[in-house]
Amino acid sequence: MTSGPGWSLHPDRALPSDPVVRPLAREILAATERLPIVSMHGHVDAGVLARDEPFADPASLLVIPDHYLVRMLVSQGVPHDDLGVPRLDGGAVQTDPREIWRTFASRWHLFRGTPTRYWLEHVLVDVFGVDERPSADSADRLYDHLADRLAAPEFRPRALFDRFGIEVLSTTDAATSTLADHAALAADGWRDRVVPTFRPDALFHVDRAAWRDDLRLLEERSGIAIHGYPDFVRAVEARRATFVAAGARSSDHGHLSADATPLSVREAGRVFDEARLGTVSAADAAAFSAHMLFETARMASEDGLVLQLHPGVLRDHDHGVVGVRGPDVGYDIPVPTDYVHGLRPLLEAFGHHPGLRMVLFTVDEDTFSRELAPLAGVYPAVRLGAPWWFLDTPDGMRRFREAVTDTAGFYNTTGFVDDTRAFCSIPARHDLARRVDAGHLARLVAEHRLDLDEAIETAVDLAYRIPREAYASRTTASAYQNA
Amino acid sequence: MTSGPGWSLHPDRALPSDPVVRPLAREILAATERLPIVSMHGHVDAGVLARDEPFADPASLLVIPDHYLVRMLVSQGVPHDDLGVPRLDGGAVQTDPREIWRTFASRWHLFRGTPTRYWLEHVLVDVFGVDERPSADSADRLYDHLADRLAAPEFRPRALFDRFGIEVLSTTDAATSTLADHAALAADGWRDRVVPTFRPDALFHVDRAAWRDDLRLLEERSGIAIHGYPDFVRAVEARRATFVAAGARSSDHGHLSADATPLSVREAGRVFDEARLGTVSAADAAAFSAHMLFETARMASEDGLVLQLHPGVLRDHDHGVVGVRGPDVGYDIPVPTDYVHGLRPLLEAFGHHPGLRMVLFTVDEDTFSRELAPLAGVYPAVRLGAPWWFLDTPDGMRRFREAVTDTAGFYNTTGFVDDTRAFCSIPARHDLARRVDAGHLARLVAEHRLDLDEAIETAVDLAYRIPREAYASRTTASAYQNA
Amino acid sequence: MTSGPGWSLHPDRALPSDPVVRPLAREILAATERLPIVSMHGHVDAGVLARDEPFADPASLLVIPDHYLVRMLVSQGVPHDDLGVPRLDGGAVQTDPREIWRTFASRWHLFRGTPTRYWLEHVLVDVFGVDERPSADSADRLYDHLADRLAAPEFRPRALFDRFGIEVLSTTDAATSTLADHAALAADGWRDRVVPTFRPDALFHVDRAAWRDDLRLLEERSGIAIHGYPDFVRAVEARRATFVAAGARSSDHGHLSADATPLSVREAGRVFDEARLGTVSAADAAAFSAHMLFETARMASEDGLVLQLHPGVLRDHDHGVVGVRGPDVGYDIPVPTDYVHGLRPLLEAFGHHPGLRMVLFTVDEDTFSRELAPLAGVYPAVRLGAPWWFLDTPDGMRRFREAVTDTAGFYNTTGFVDDTRAFCSIPARHDLARRVDAGHLARLVAEHRLDLDEAIETAVDLAYRIPREAYASRTTASAYQNA
Repeated sequence: MTSGPGWSLHPDRALPSDPVVRPLAREILAATERLPIVSMHGHVDAGVLARDEPFADPASLLVIPDHYLVRMLVSQGVPHDDLGVPRLDGGAVQTDPREIWRTFASRWHLFRGTPTRYWLEHVLVDVFGVDERPSADSADRLYDHLADRLAAPEFRPRALFDRFGIEVLSTTDAATSTLADHAALAADGWRDRVVPTFRPDALFHVDRAAWRDDLRLLEERSGIAIHGYPDFVRAVEARRATFVAAGARSSDHGHLSADATPLSVREAGRVFDEARLGTVSAADAAAFSAHMLFETARMASEDGLVLQLHPGVLRDHDHGVVGVRGPDVGYDIPVPTDYVHGLRPLLEAFGHHPGLRMVLFTVDEDTFSRELAPLAGVYPAVRLGAPWWFLDTPDGMRRFREAVTDTAGFYNTTGFVDDTRAFCSIPARHDLARRVDAGHLARLVAEHRLDLDEAIETAVDLAYRIPREAYASRTTASAYQNA
Repeated sequence: MTSGPGWSLHPDRALPSDPVVRPLAREILAATERLPIVSMHGHVDAGVLARDEPFADPASLLVIPDHYLVRMLVSQGVPHDDLGVPRLDGGAVQTDPREIWRTFASRWHLFRGTPTRYWLEHVLVDVFGVDERPSADSADRLYDHLADRLAAPEFRPRALFDRFGIEVLSTTDAATSTLADHAALAADGWRDRVVPTFRPDALFHVDRAAWRDDLRLLEERSGIAIHGYPDFVRAVEARRATFVAAGARSSDHGHLSADATPLSVREAGRVFDEARLGTVSAADAAAFSAHMLFETARMASEDGLVLQLHPGVLRDHDHGVVGVRGPDVGYDIPVPTDYVHGLRPLLEAFGHHPGLRMVLFTVDEDTFSRELAPLAGVYPAVRLGAPWWFLDTPDGMRRFREAVTDTAGFYNTTGFVDDTRAFCSIPARHDLARRVDAGHLARLVAEHRLDLDEAIETAVDLAYRIPREAYASRTTASAYQNA
Repeated sequence: MTSGPGWSLHPDRALPSDPVVRPLAREILAATERLPIVSMHGHVDAGVLARDEPFADPASLLVIPDHYLVRMLVSQGVPHDDLGVPRLDGGAVQTDPREIWRTFASRWHLFRGTPTRYWLEHVLVDVFGVDERPSADSADRLYDHLADRLAAPEFRPRALFDRFGIEVLSTTDAATSTLADHAALAADGWRDRVVPTFRPDALFHVDRAAWRDDLRLLEERSGIAIHGYPDFVRAVEARRATFVAAGARSSDHGHLSADATPLSVREAGRVFDEARLGTVSAADAAAFSAHMLFETARMASEDGLVLQLHPGVLRDHDHGVVGVRGPDVGYDIPVPTDYVHGLRPLLEAFGHHPGLRMVLFTVDEDTFSRELAPLAGVYPAVRLGAPWWFLDTPDGMRRFREAVTDTAGFYNTTGFVDDTRAFCSIPARHDLARRVDAGHLARLVAEHRLDLDEAIETAVDLAYRIPREAYASRTTASAYQNA
C-alpha cells in the first residue's frame, strides 16, 4: 500500500511478517480466499436488498451509520452535528454529504492501526477502485469518484451482494417485524440468501420506556391477545414460528449480564403484570430478562433456532448524548461479564440437550481462557462466536485463537461471524478473519504443532463449513457431528 | 511431523519460528533437554508404582482417566457412556476398550491446536513408537500396537519412571491416607523417588456430604479422639507430621476463593460443632475453609511443608452430570480470584516468616500481572506456580512468562510444576515447558534484553534447580538464597 | 551486550527480532531517537535540581529510593534493613552505601527479564560508562567507578538534565507545597523546564491519620480560614491557581477506585465535618474521595489543569511492614478497577467539556480493551496514559498498544509518560518506550496495515508531539485538534 495514485491492497496484508510463517500463511489462505461468504449475524437492513435502489451518497453509505467511525471522530472533538448524526428534536445538523465526507477524510490519520482503517481501505480500493489515500487534499476527488460509482448499476445492493460472493446473509429483525422485506426478497427468489434473525430484546427488557408499545405490537403481529405472562410466552413462541417459517436460523439477545436464572411462572407473572402497570423495579426487570433468556433456551431446544447471546455491554453510558441523539451513537461500553454463574441454570437444564445450540459472544476478553473456553470445551450445546465488536480486530482475533483454542479447540467455535452494519465492509471483514486464522494456523505449523494438511482443512472449516454447520438446524448439525 | 507412516516429533517443535530466535532457542534448550524431571505436584496414583503391574489397555491408560480428553469429546456430542466413564448407579457404559479407543481416534481433528494434542503426540510417538496419526482408519492398528507394547516389561510403571528420567515424583494424597503405597515404595528403596503430598481439602470444606465420614477417618488415622475444634487441629498436625516423616515436601489446597481470613478459636469451634451436627451454613463453611488456610500457613511455618494453593475453580458446574458420574468428569470451571484481599491476613502474619513457602497457582490469567506478580515480587514467602490446568499450554505458559517476569522475575516462580494425571504424559509436559521457556528466553536474547549465558543459566534453573529449591525444606532454601 | 569488559548497549535492543520487522523498526526509531524528552509525570524531587548538589553515593542514588529494586530484593529474602531502608523508630539499618551496593550487585541475576534490568543497564552503561556486569566480584569496582563519576561536575543534576535532553520535567507536589524549589528554579531561568504538578491526595482522603495536619497546612498555604466544606473547596481552588501560576500543567490523583460520584454540598459538608472531628467512617471517606474527583473535573474544566487519575492500587498491603517503615516500600498491590461505572457521573457531566482533559492510567491491564479504549474512543475529554508502574515494561507497553489501538487509535493516548522516581533512568525509560512503539509500528507496516511514512509520523507524534499537546493548555489543544 502506498499513498497517492497507486494505492492498493497488498496481497500479504494482515499475514504475520515472520518469513517462516508468511509463506505457510499464504498457502493456507489460498484455500479459503475464494470460498463463499456465510454471514450469519449482522445488521444490514433487509429493505436495502429488497428495494435494491442505488445507495444515496458516500457519506450516508460509509460515514454516518458507522458507529466505529463516528465515535472515533467524536473522541477527537468532532461534534456529532458535523457528522450529520440526527438529533431527536429535529435540530439542524450537517446535511451536505460532501462536507461530512471532508470532515472524515481530513482525519484519516486518526484511524491508523484500527480495524476501521483496514476495512475502509479494503472497501475504497477493492470495492470502489479508489487509488489514493483519504486526506483533506484528496477528499473531493474521492467523493466524486465514489458518487460516480454509486450511480452505476453494478453498485446497486444486489449486484454488490453477488459480487461479494455472499452465499447467505442473516439480518437482525425485531420480534415484532412484519418481515415484509424478507417476503419481498423471497418473492424474488432470494429466500435462502437473505434470512431474518429473531431479536426480542425490546420485549424482554420490560423497564424500557417503549415496552408497552412493543407489547401492543406483539399482540398485533402474533394475533394473540396478551392478558398475562402465559399469553406473552405464547405470543413470543408464535413469532419464533413465523421467523422459522421465513427461514430464520437463529435468535439474537443483547443483555447487560449473562444471567439466565429462571423465575417461577407465578413470579414471572407478577413482574410481567407490574411492567404492564409501569411499576416494575429495575431489579425485577433484570430478573425477568434473565428468566426470558432461560425460556429462550427452552424454546430453542424445541424449535431449533440457534441462541446467540451478546452480553456485557452497558448501553448509553452518557445519558445526555443519548437524550439528544438516541441510542447507538457510540456510547455503549463493555463491562465485566460472569458467564460461569450466570449461565449455570440454563446449562444445567439444556447444556446437553440435542436441540440446543447456543453461541456466546463477548467484549470482555478476560473471559476467553477463564470462562468461555472451559464452558464451550465441555457443554455440547455451547459454541463460541467470533470476538465481537471492539474485539473484531486483527489482534483481538489473534488473542482469541491463542486463548480459547487450548481448551475449546477450533471446532467449538463458530468460525467467523461478522456483525456488520456497513454492507460494503462484509467482504473486508471476512477477508481479514480468514487472514488472521491463516496466520494463526501457519504459526502452529511453523512451530510443528500442526501439520500443513490439517491447517488447510481447519482454515476451510473455519471460513465456511463450521459457520454453516453452527447455524444449521440441529438435526443437520447432529448428522455432521457424527459424520 | 507428517501423517501416515513416518509420523515423528520434530526436534524444533514448540520453539518460536522466528529465524533469529529459533537457533538461540535450540541452544538454550540443549542445556535442559537431558536434565532429570522434578515433578513436585501431580495426581499419579502411588499404587501404580507400588504394585508395578502392567497397564491394562490403551483406553484405560490414555483416554478414560484424562479429563482434558473426555471433556473435549463430550463437548462435541460424544456421550460419557461411550467413553466408558462410569456411572455412580453402576448403569451400563461402554466397556470395550477398543471401542472407546476408536471413538477417540476417529475424532483426532478435534484436538488440533490443543496441548492435549501435543502431549498425546509425544506419548504416542516417543513413548510408544507409534508412526501414524490417529484416525478412524488407523484406530485398530494403533490399538493393537499400543496393547502389544503395554504387555512388555519395559512398559511397566517403574521401567517407564526410569526411562522418563524422573528424579522425584510427588503424588497427591488425602490427609487421611494410610500412605501404605508410599511405605511399600520405601521398602523397595524408592522413598526419595516417590513422595506424598498432604491434601486436607476433604477435611477443610466442612459442608461436604461425606465430611463426617472423613472426620471419623481422621480420628482413626491420627489416633486422636476429636471432641472439638482443638482436637481437630491437633489431629491435622499429627497427620502432617506423619506425611513429613514419609518424605512429603508440601501440602496442596483446592479452594473456591483465596480467602485466608482467620476466625477466633471460639468462632472456629462454633462452626466446627455445627458441621458435626450437619447444620453448618454455606457461609460458615466457607469462612472455616478460609480459616484453615490461614492455620495451614501457621502450621507450615512450623513444620516446613510448602503450602500449595489452587484457588478459583467452581467445581461441579453441572449438578446433573455430577449426580450421575461423580466429580472430576470435566465440569470444573474457573472463576475470578481475588488474591490481594483474600491472602492479606495470611501474608501480613506469615508473608515474611522464614519458615513459610507458599506457592500460588491460578486459572485466572487476568491476575498474572495485576495481582500474582506484584505479590510474589515483594513477599519472601510467595512463589508463583506454573500456569495451571487450562493454562498449562504453550501459549498460556508464554503469556505467563511475558506477564509475570516484569515484576516477579524468574526467581520468584517455581519453574515447571506439571499437575499430571496421565503418567505417560509427564515427559511430554516437562518437554513442552522447557521448550516454551527456551523460546521465551531466546526472544529476550534476540531483543538484547538478556545475554545468552544468562539465558542458559536461567533455563537450567527453571527446569531443575528452582523446582528442587522451591520444594526443599525451608532450611535448605534459605541456604540457597544466600549462596 | 556481553559480560565483563566490553559490556555495552546493543543498538537494536528491545526491537522485535523478526528480520522483516527489525529494519523497519530501526528506520522508525531513527526518527525519534534524538527528539527532546517531554516528561510530564514523575517523582523527581525538584529540590535536587534547585540545589544542584552532587549526588551522595551510588546506593542512595540508585538502590535505596528505587521501590522496584527494593521490593525484588526483599522478595528474595533480603531484609529491608540490609538495604538501608530507614525505620520509623530510627532503629539501626545498614548505613554503609558500599555494603548496600554489594547486596544489590551480587543479586543482579534476580532482575533478569525485568524492566529494572533494562533501565539499570542503560543507566550504568550509557550514563555512567560502566563496562562490566554487576556481580559479587565486580561490585566494588563498579562502586568506585560510580562514586568517582558522581563527584564530577558533569554528573550534577542540572548537567545531567541537559545531557538527557529533557525539554520539560513535571514533578509531583503536595497541594500544600510552598513550591519554593520551583521558585528557585524559576529564578535561575528554569521556569518552563521544571514545572510542578498539583497532588491533593493527602487532602482528599479524609480518614488518613495525618489529614487534620494537612488541613491546617492547607489553611496556612492558601491563606483561607477553613470553617467548613465550602472554605475547603475555595482553598483547594486557590492552591490550584498558585500551581497554575507556577507553570503547572496538571493535577495528579491516586485513588483506590475510579469512583467519581458527586455528593450534594450538604452531604459533602457533613462528611467533611465528621472528618474534622475524627469520626468519619471509611465508607464516608471513600465517598468524599469520589466526590472530590468529580469536583476536580469541574475545577479542571475551569482552570485547564489536566486531570491525571491513577486508580486501582491498594496501598500498604502489609500493615506490619508499613508500621515499621512507612509507605512506599514495595507493598502497594493492584486491584481490579471499574472505570465504566466509576467515571460515569464525571463523564456525563464533563466528558464533552472543551475545558477538560482527563488522562487515565491503569495497573489493571484487563481494562485495556474492555473499558479504557472504549471510553477514550468516544469521550473527547479522555486520553489514555501510558501503561503504568508494573505495566511500564517492554511487554506491558506492547500489550497496551495491541489492545487499545484497535478502538482508541494512537491519538487518544498521551504518548509516553514516565512516572520516574530515579532521575537517572529518565532517558532509559523514554528510550525503551520509543523502541517498543517503533517495534509495534514496524509490525503494522510489515503486515501492510500501515504505510511507512504514516508509521514514522506516528512515532514522532507519540514520542514528542502528543505528550506536549496532551498536557498543553486546553486552548492550544483545541487548536491542534483542528489543525
